[in-house]
Amino acid sequence: MPLPHLTQARAPLTREVEVMNQHGERETISIPAERDLTVYVDKRELVTLMTLGAHPEWLVLGYLLNQRLIASSDDIESITVDWEVGAASVKTRHGIDHIEERTSKRVVTTGCGQGSVFGNLMDEIDSIQLPANMVLRQSQLYAIVNAIRLKESTYKSAGSVHACALFRGDELQLFVEDVGRHNAVDTIAGWMAMTPTLPTACGSLPPEGADPAWGGPAPDRTAPTGDKIFYTTGRLTSEMVIKSAQMGVPIVVSRSGITQMGHAVAERVGLCTIGRATNKHFLCYTGVQRLQLQPELAGPKLRAVA
Amino acid sequence: MPLPHLTQARAPLTREVEVMNQHGERETISIPAERDLTVYVDKRELVTLMTLGAHPEWLVLGYLLNQRLIASSDDIESITVDWEVGAASVKTRHGIDHIEERTSKRVVTTGCGQGSVFGNLMDEIDSIQLPANMVLRQSQLYAIVNAIRLKESTYKSAGSVHACALFRGDELQLFVEDVGRHNAVDTIAGWMAMTPTLPTACGSLPPEGADPAWGGPAPDRTAPTGDKIFYTTGRLTSEMVIKSAQMGVPIVVSRSGITQMGHAVAERVGLCTIGRATNKHFLCYTGVQRLQLQPELAGPKLRAVA
Repeated sequence: MPLPHLTQARAPLTREVEVMNQHGERETISIPAERDLTVYVDKRELVTLMTLGAHPEWLVLGYLLNQRLIASSDDIESITVDWEVGAASVKTRHGIDHIEERTSKRVVTTGCGQGSVFGNLMDEIDSIQLPANMVLRQSQLYAIVNAIRLKESTYKSAGSVHACALFRGDELQLFVEDVGRHNAVDTIAGWMAMTPTLPTACGSLPPEGADPAWGGPAPDRTAPTGDKIFYTTGRLTSEMVIKSAQMGVPIVVSRSGITQMGHAVAERVGLCTIGRATNKHFLCYTGVQRLQLQPELAGPKLRAVA
Repeated sequence: MPLPHLTQARAPLTREVEVMNQHGERETISIPAERDLTVYVDKRELVTLMTLGAHPEWLVLGYLLNQRLIASSDDIESITVDWEVGAASVKTRHGIDHIEERTSKRVVTTGCGQGSVFGNLMDEIDSIQLPANMVLRQSQLYAIVNAIRLKESTYKSAGSVHACALFRGDELQLFVEDVGRHNAVDTIAGWMAMTPTLPTACGSLPPEGADPAWGGPAPDRTAPTGDKIFYTTGRLTSEMVIKSAQMGVPIVVSRSGITQMGHAVAERVGLCTIGRATNKHFLCYTGVQRLQLQPELAGPKLRAVA
């Protein structure tokens, strides 16, 4: 089955505005874009997403996947984004069965950003099997945190965006920012779907920046999902943990903390959650058996001076 | 018209979990609750909100108001929350007209948390008239930032929650935390609706902690909405700015930044947005005429050393 045809719609990610600071001085700063993108599936309006607009086609594909409205990219013939009218036109190969019924149940979730999940995602999580043997070394975790720190980003220039990234070991595969962190994770899901994998880890994914869907020779698509690590700047709420599990990613790293339901879902599916990951510090909340500790790398323990 | 009857459902806001730190040591920490609350309106299921659970009745009332499904608290007879079953049962006085139709359009927004807005909120903003003469002094802004800093909170004990607060001048009226910041602002809207106001600023609202809806003598409800300042730890996305405008609050202060559409909406409705507000620092993005600058309070300007 050929991959879906995706446009490459582009729009500026930041805009300059004039502000007044505390000294009564005018300054010019950059702020991130926030655009409305209305998704039409076979000419029927589905939803409007508010997005930074960096990768709208992957976002829409990942949204449909993470909402379980499609099973794989095979269900999609094309996604055409036109920023002039703020529309993403999705053409399916065979329609989506019972779309009315499947989009009628709303859960307004905790997450930052795209907070509407259709259907009962929680009902599904017991059917998810994550690979049992995937392990992350503490040194790899530190390399992941450092790679994010060094990344040039909209956040550095304009703030107010969340970032997600996909790693294989400590190798960065994709870095995505959006005004909503759920958009960012959906964008990663869309990218993964356009980068099919085989069940053995005997090869490597295309380097970051290579877009297999957009022409050129087919890359070596041989890395299974199960060897991936998902990084997010956002909190590990129930929805973020569910989406990671849905994508088959068994280890999630966050700069932020975790909520009670995120914790409960992660324990239930055997997902390793690591939060408060900055510099050498972190807390492993669940799935500690997937973390290969190397406490000698953590540096000296800080103790309060009496 | 009597105020709606609200239950006072309570549930623990944090839970202790055991974690592993970077030194390979086990620690016990608190994490915030995240609960699903399914809202039924006249026995018909409307939506499931994921919430910390501190003020579920105000949350549901504010949600219905901010979604424009009801016009005022007069439309509601009672809201009964039962955490045993995770349900909020809303009884209206006269039903909600065309509820099917009005909840069919979905906008999945940028905001942290409750990201689903029914209908075309953007279409409404041109009809909003904010009071023209409301001004905030820089000294009051600093007092607001300081009041938030001093607040005992779930954030301090467990992290991973957003806070909103309502001020009158620099006087704190209500402080709300939730795992989703849109829940926090909706909770404030619900509280405001239970604390009706008169069109002149000749009195004062009940002190924080007094719950007029829950019995006791009626407080002096004489403060107009227009003299309020809304504080949020979250970003000023389009939805946050729209919700503030809907509540008639003309000044919004954030610890975070602003997005392009938040900026555009604020300019359009003449709302004053102030971001990056920590300590003495801030940036006024829009509506600078509402900010009475006192640059002498800002302290010395920091300059790079050559």
